[in-house]
Amino acid sequence: MTSNSSTRVRILVHGATGRMGQALMRLGAQRPDATIVAAVSRGMPAQRVVDGVPHFAASELHGAPAFDVAIDFSLPQGVDGVLALCLERGAAFVSGTTGLEDGQRGSLQAASERIPVLWASNFSLGVAVLGELVERAAAVLPGWDCDIVEAHHVHKQDAPSGTALTLGGFAELGGAQPRYASLRAGDIVGEHTVQFATAGERIELIHRATNREVFAHGALHAAVRLASRRPGLYRVRDVIS
Amino acid sequence: MTSNSSTRVRILVHGATGRMGQALMRLGAQRPDATIVAAVSRGMPAQRVVDGVPHFAASELHGAPAFDVAIDFSLPQGVDGVLALCLERGAAFVSGTTGLEDGQRGSLQAASERIPVLWASNFSLGVAVLGELVERAAAVLPGWDCDIVEAHHVHKQDAPSGTALTLGGFAELGGAQPRYASLRAGDIVGEHTVQFATAGERIELIHRATNREVFAHGALHAAVRLASRRPGLYRVRDVIS
Amino acid sequence: MTSNSSTRVRILVHGATGRMGQALMRLGAQRPDATIVAAVSRGMPAQRVVDGVPHFAASELHGAPAFDVAIDFSLPQGVDGVLALCLERGAAFVSGTTGLEDGQRGSLQAASERIPVLWASNFSLGVAVLGELVERAAAVLPGWDCDIVEAHHVHKQDAPSGTALTLGGFAELGGAQPRYASLRAGDIVGEHTVQFATAGERIELIHRATNREVFAHGALHAAVRLASRRPGLYRVRDVIS
Amino acid sequence: MTSNSSTRVRILVHGATGRMGQALMRLGAQRPDATIVAAVSRGMPAQRVVDGVPHFAASELHGAPAFDVAIDFSLPQGVDGVLALCLERGAAFVSGTTGLEDGQRGSLQAASERIPVLWASNFSLGVAVLGELVERAAAVLPGWDCDIVEAHHVHKQDAPSGTALTLGGFAELGGAQPRYASLRAGDIVGEHTVQFATAGERIELIHRATNREVFAHGALHAAVRLASRRPGLYRVRDVIS
Repeated sequence: MTSNSSTRVRILVHGATGRMGQALMRLGAQRPDATIVAAVSRGMPAQRVVDGVPHFAASELHGAPAFDVAIDFSLPQGVDGVLALCLERGAAFVSGTTGLEDGQRGSLQAASERIPVLWASNFSLGVAVLGELVERAAAVLPGWDCDIVEAHHVHKQDAPSGTALTLGGFAELGGAQPRYASLRAGDIVGEHTVQFATAGERIELIHRATNREVFAHGALHAAVRLASRRPGLYRVRDVIS
Repeated sequence: MTSNSSTRVRILVHGATGRMGQALMRLGAQRPDATIVAAVSRGMPAQRVVDGVPHFAASELHGAPAFDVAIDFSLPQGVDGVLALCLERGAAFVSGTTGLEDGQRGSLQAASERIPVLWASNFSLGVAVLGELVERAAAVLPGWDCDIVEAHHVHKQDAPSGTALTLGGFAELGGAQPRYASLRAGDIVGEHTVQFATAGERIELIHRATNREVFAHGALHAAVRLASRRPGLYRVRDVIS
Repeated sequence: MTSNSSTRVRILVHGATGRMGQALMRLGAQRPDATIVAAVSRGMPAQRVVDGVPHFAASELHGAPAFDVAIDFSLPQGVDGVLALCLERGAAFVSGTTGLEDGQRGSLQAASERIPVLWASNFSLGVAVLGELVERAAAVLPGWDCDIVEAHHVHKQDAPSGTALTLGGFAELGGAQPRYASLRAGDIVGEHTVQFATAGERIELIHRATNREVFAHGALHAAVRLASRRPGLYRVRDVIS
Repeated sequence: MTSNSSTRVRILVHGATGRMGQALMRLGAQRPDATIVAAVSRGMPAQRVVDGVPHFAASELHGAPAFDVAIDFSLPQGVDGVLALCLERGAAFVSGTTGLEDGQRGSLQAASERIPVLWASNFSLGVAVLGELVERAAAVLPGWDCDIVEAHHVHKQDAPSGTALTLGGFAELGGAQPRYASLRAGDIVGEHTVQFATAGERIELIHRATNREVFAHGALHAAVRLASRRPGLYRVRDVIS
């Protein structure tokens, strides 16, 4: 807690008024190793300062002060602008915005040759670790049946969840062919089970998120780590250890 | 173990050469409260005695000795004959044969006015108890989301399982509207989870069968109990307590 | 939401500044079928009104306005006073205060001859239902092994949890002899698993609380129901259906 | 299945009349890549041939034909003899015998400089994989609480199980300090849960064995792999990939 502010990672939050953005603002203010230096949001009418943090409209992006890394949880149409700003400033780029078009994914790839870039569907540390375990299990358990069951609150529209598909991708990297099942019940924050089964035995790898703040904590953690990395395309698990 | 044979329930096993029939023969021979007095099977060429038990072809049904209850795990086309024999002899009828036609279900109903009749998709004591718990939970948790997840070995064709549908029927009796998910993996004998979820809490009611013999034990237990009941249509849970 | 205030149950909250008390005040204000008419707390210096609710020090209890039911989450030494007030006013009494002495339990019993009384270690609807299911399962599964596993956050001192012991009591009512295991990890709100196992099969009955508000909701729900009951000693499950 | 017998790994089973030994004999006879060339057991009165496999008393060990690997599931006092034979023949040594003395562990270590040696408390492939996943998870989740829960049949005497302690050892290698809980219920073959928990999320890594044959399959698999390795001390997971 004695960190000097000059050693703190300077973060710009893009999409600051969304549910994730609000959590990032609140939790970011509590970290000893980071400072939120600017907040950007589409609906923001004009520059103003809230709790010591200058807020900008998306159209005023270029007025933002110096920062080391941008965290973006916005909409597909807002991503290009903040990515361009990161490239201009040489800052790292962390994004959890979903629904990107193929062209935008290409832009992230291209940008990663000049700045550190990390896009993920889920920023919890636990899910990142689970993905790694799933890939390893799939690789050393050839021929075992692989099933992924996910459960979320009744308001979640898409199924399987993006996280389930990401975990399934790790299983496929290891050589498995997962099948999916989805439950929508109560206010479940997010639970994912990856099961590997064969005759006489099975393994279940489960992640349970019980508090949405874990996703904001994870994005902040990833941003702090990414700020000091070399240009490249990173995954959450790359900034874990 | 000192039971006199005259006090033992006399059982006829119909469908004795099938997988369940074989288990019934083996486990029935070990019970102190029952005796297998006859075995009937479609493919049986002629009357013969195996391990002290006379075996009959389906066409020779009427030569079977006196019995108190028939246990039937056969095929739909075999059910009518053994049910008629039970009516003729005034014996109880227990059946786990699946795929019955509506007319046959009507025959069971009609027969139950004269003899005790019990048909079930699952004879494990645990599943019978779970059904009762599910109905009660559904009744006292109005508005909670209800999901049923079942897992079975990869050779099981139908989904959801008959047991899942039976459990779902109990949930509906209690007022819930369950949704179903099915996994087919490894050699899982049978697992059923009924989940009730609302904001902030949930209940999971799970049954795991790890050995197929539990189904044969359950059918034998039900048969012994049913033999002394009055005519009527029973469910497994009716002969539990 | 159109309930007339004259039909609302009038609640006095005793222990209003504790963690549960604060939740009761916040959630009680949102119910269409109840009104918090007074709050009492030991540390309260003098009568004042907060958010429209008059607050009283414990020493000023007798100045409280008319109420139908008191909800008490305080300390053992505070219980006698509010119980006496309920008897004087003919109001129902709901309490989740732990650590009561035998004499106090006797007072609750004696009071229940004149007013409705409900004391519980856990007010979630789910746990109340689970207790009932556990008793029933234990009763119809004689000879099955019974284990209770509970998991809570690392700050919880006592083990097994009061709720685990309550569930164990239900298992004993049904004839089982449960054994207990406890985990203390992370910020787990509260999870209880009651397992019944025999050869070849088992049943797991699980409750997961993911949000502490369920306990306040449950106490409010119980209070509203209890207000219109006859004198007697009630359990949470008595006011469920 | 067309493997020529000359390419099959030749296995000597030591402790052939024990529960594991019988499973090794039965399952080993079905493998296309191995042949059981000899069986040794303490109680064996004289050399005889069963199902084409010559059986030897422990005192006749040196009459055993050529073999590539010995699989030993016997008693501590029987281990020294078969280990000496493996050293003499230059054969690999696989053992699941428990209760070894420190001196015997030293002998295994010393032998591993000349032959491949593998001792394990559990030979299921799934548990071996789980151990690896546990070590990795512990290493990348510093500060998370670690709990290990194991469940076995009521006849199991020791607690925690040897497998739980092995998994705990992997967790410690990764930097965690696990706590243990044990259940003894029904006829559970063996279930192990390793839980990592922090604020807002947790991971559960579970292995369920439902059939004891998996342990025999695992030992045979390990033996076939070990036969072609260089001298050294191996773990089950070393012969997985």
